Amino acid sequence: MTNRPNLIVAGAQTGPIQRADTRAHTLDRLIALLEQSAAKGAKLVAFPELPLTTFFPRWYIENTQELDTYYEREMPNPNVQKLFDRARELKVGFYLGYAELTPEGRRFNTSITVGPDGQILGKYRKVHLPGSVEPRAGSRFQQLEKRYFEYGDLGFPAFRGAEDWGRPALGMLICNDRRWPEAWRSYGLQGIELMLIGYNSAAYDPNGGTAENEEIRTFHSTLAVQANAYFNATFAVSVAKAGDEDGSGLIGGSVIVDPNGMILAQAKTLEDEVIVAELDWSKIAQGRGPGKIFDFGFHRRPQHYSRIVNQVGLEEIP
Amino acid sequence: MTNRPNLIVAGAQTGPIQRADTRAHTLDRLIALLEQSAAKGAKLVAFPELPLTTFFPRWYIENTQELDTYYEREMPNPNVQKLFDRARELKVGFYLGYAELTPEGRRFNTSITVGPDGQILGKYRKVHLPGSVEPRAGSRFQQLEKRYFEYGDLGFPAFRGAEDWGRPALGMLICNDRRWPEAWRSYGLQGIELMLIGYNSAAYDPNGGTAENEEIRTFHSTLAVQANAYFNATFAVSVAKAGDEDGSGLIGGSVIVDPNGMILAQAKTLEDEVIVAELDWSKIAQGRGPGKIFDFGFHRRPQHYSRIVNQVGLEEIP
Repeated sequence: MTNRPNLIVAGAQTGPIQRADTRAHTLDRLIALLEQSAAKGAKLVAFPELPLTTFFPRWYIENTQELDTYYEREMPNPNVQKLFDRARELKVGFYLGYAELTPEGRRFNTSITVGPDGQILGKYRKVHLPGSVEPRAGSRFQQLEKRYFEYGDLGFPAFRGAEDWGRPALGMLICNDRRWPEAWRSYGLQGIELMLIGYNSAAYDPNGGTAENEEIRTFHSTLAVQANAYFNATFAVSVAKAGDEDGSGLIGGSVIVDPNGMILAQAKTLEDEVIVAELDWSKIAQGRGPGKIFDFGFHRRPQHYSRIVNQVGLEEIP
Repeated sequence: MTNRPNLIVAGAQTGPIQRADTRAHTLDRLIALLEQSAAKGAKLVAFPELPLTTFFPRWYIENTQELDTYYEREMPNPNVQKLFDRARELKVGFYLGYAELTPEGRRFNTSITVGPDGQILGKYRKVHLPGSVEPRAGSRFQQLEKRYFEYGDLGFPAFRGAEDWGRPALGMLICNDRRWPEAWRSYGLQGIELMLIGYNSAAYDPNGGTAENEEIRTFHSTLAVQANAYFNATFAVSVAKAGDEDGSGLIGGSVIVDPNGMILAQAKTLEDEVIVAELDWSKIAQGRGPGKIFDFGFHRRPQHYSRIVNQVGLEEIP
């Protein structure tokens, strides 16, 4: 495992993508971010969750035909081919979120990682869907992911990146997943070295409360990535769609984090913005090498963790 | 659950406790911290891990008679009775770590929580023992917890605090446990509202590396508590034994954290120091109330978490 090349990774944060924006216009923005990333030396670029359209789960859309315009029936497809083509020309891979509509009519909040040759290396379907099935009466904005998507059915499948990247073990999460240590550990136990995450996170409590604001929501977003990267001794890149989208605020705060949980790069705006960092895979061993603090085989005690799988919800003690 | 009283909780950080210090002298220091805490209105005081003696696992002690002087054969016992008596007089409860030697000769790194009436409300034995069984050749300081203690055999048992405190669901962890999300979630699924933690954390890499220093070790300590408190929507108090103990550095950084992961109080010294905060139990619902972001029953997907219990160590993908 010596002489592995470092990887320059980019987080391609986007500003808002309005409901009225055309897909062609949005794709051109993603391509511009890809090119900026490549110009900074990046060989892998992470885009946000659902960056091809507005975050449509904020709307209660009863018209199925309209709803279907937000989904991709295959990947790639003519609406995104230009991005795939440009990435292959640049020999740059990417993580891309999208709403997936399968031939069987199933709907998932999905992400893929594409290699520098344009091949899909890994696919993930969001497990931790936030929000609700039914719209909340009286709310201007909804969070209807549980209505528009099924729960991901692929588990947490780690996969290898390109040779050119040092062949790292990669994992993918989407948005709310990053707050769930179970998801990170499921990948950590497979030895992941870089977690790729895209998100759209409201700058207010998406569940109707008034106690949360943009500052605290951004703090939570960063805290979750720093801590879980540390606990699993992995690098992570976590990328926002940010800003005022259709009149609804989205936090920014995209970060690249090292296996110590320390921030290597952080977005400063709520606009289209590229952040990059160079990842040295040898830094992982300090966390989880033999005898180290997160040498799982040496220190974990799963016989005491059974509640985590045997129990779904809270069971309050008497 | 309305009209629950708030609880003022204290973290009673200690400076170093040298190998040469008498137990009577050390106990007087703990009593002084208890009294300072009570004077600030605290009804529950958390002491560090193993605060009755120096952190003896840093020494390779071959003489069993000498080793045994660090353990308590019952709790309370004449060596600590004065602390129990003073606490009952003040109607203050406390969390206390100690090295436990059972009648059967078993040894554990243990903590108890004592109620305002002097009764033991809960007991915990450290599950995540760091360090090694065999001493590391050539190291001035060892980390021999795996030699001197058995792994805790009580799991993660939540329990109720006193009526006077609002009868919160409480959990206990010890030191390295705080870095393991599995431990927190096992308590979180029981609805804990306050996690009590004591620690002795080296100001350098205790596993022999040179990549970690006091700053990064303190950052990790705080990060772990903030993030896991947030993920489980619980308050937490995490208390250090700090400073230069027997020539070996210990980090400080004791903190009290709210269910948002935000710091309510933080120690500023490496000496005996009391921090306090007032806990409002109603703040927990924002995190894990019905339909909220950590409404476990609504959002968790244990069918995808099986690796966490079925697998101990890393299983790298091909």
